[in-house]
Amino acid sequence: MSHAGDCPLCSGPGGELLWRDDRLRVIAVDDALHPGFARVVWNAHVREMTDLDADDRAYCMAVVLAVESAVRDLVRPDKINLASFGNVVPHLHWHVIPRWTDDPHFPEPVWGARRHERAHPVSPDYRIDMQERLIRVLGPGVGIATG
Amino acid sequence: MSHAGDCPLCSGPGGELLWRDDRLRVIAVDDALHPGFARVVWNAHVREMTDLDADDRAYCMAVVLAVESAVRDLVRPDKINLASFGNVVPHLHWHVIPRWTDDPHFPEPVWGARRHERAHPVSPDYRIDMQERLIRVLGPGVGIATG
Repeated sequence: MSHAGDCPLCSGPGGELLWRDDRLRVIAVDDALHPGFARVVWNAHVREMTDLDADDRAYCMAVVLAVESAVRDLVRPDKINLASFGNVVPHLHWHVIPRWTDDPHFPEPVWGARRHERAHPVSPDYRIDMQERLIRVLGPGVGIATG
Repeated sequence: MSHAGDCPLCSGPGGELLWRDDRLRVIAVDDALHPGFARVVWNAHVREMTDLDADDRAYCMAVVLAVESAVRDLVRPDKINLASFGNVVPHLHWHVIPRWTDDPHFPEPVWGARRHERAHPVSPDYRIDMQERLIRVLGPGVGIATG
């Protein structure tokens, strides 16, 4: 795995680890305004999707969409937002964000203008449910214990 | 193809058509602050990636990444941003945005805070080059003439 010395996604998981294997990990993002926000982080320090080979591109998106599917089933959002930017941290990671028409930024992206501070309510068991779901769909993964 | 009566991506191409086939199209976005901005629009009125079957998901992302690859080669951006939101127009479309450290919103997403109004310069031949590139990589496509 390639590393970049000052990259926060090389030096730590980047959030609460929900699932990982040797290529990527799924983390829960601590965003009080957007509960259910998850990220899929490529483990190696890669900038762009097109820096991956065809098999890794397909695998990365399959996991992103497995997370999308799990989020849709578990919290029934009005919309899913997917994004890969990396302008600040140029280490490949995908945002998977459940959106509701009553959430603080809707219909803007969560990086846009904020309308209010009231998050859409999500079950406190959500992260546990999500972790169980990912293990069921993606398999047991590897290396969860070490982060 | 399914349609929604009031959907602007069902009633029109959504921008200058660069390439299309029976499943999707690639359009150039008119955004003076972000030249080179392209979208991949699924032709049918589908909300989410996970509403597509496995073959269509893979095809959609392969085209998104073919566009990413073309954009990288043609205008050499500092970063690529990819996003599928659809909060305002819930008809599946992907934003493929070349970003430069001197562009008006960097490092924010293009929907975030603006720093200045000076776009990064892009060749006036860019759209022609992009269209030629997509035809070379993806094939001739279908239905370009009808939009």
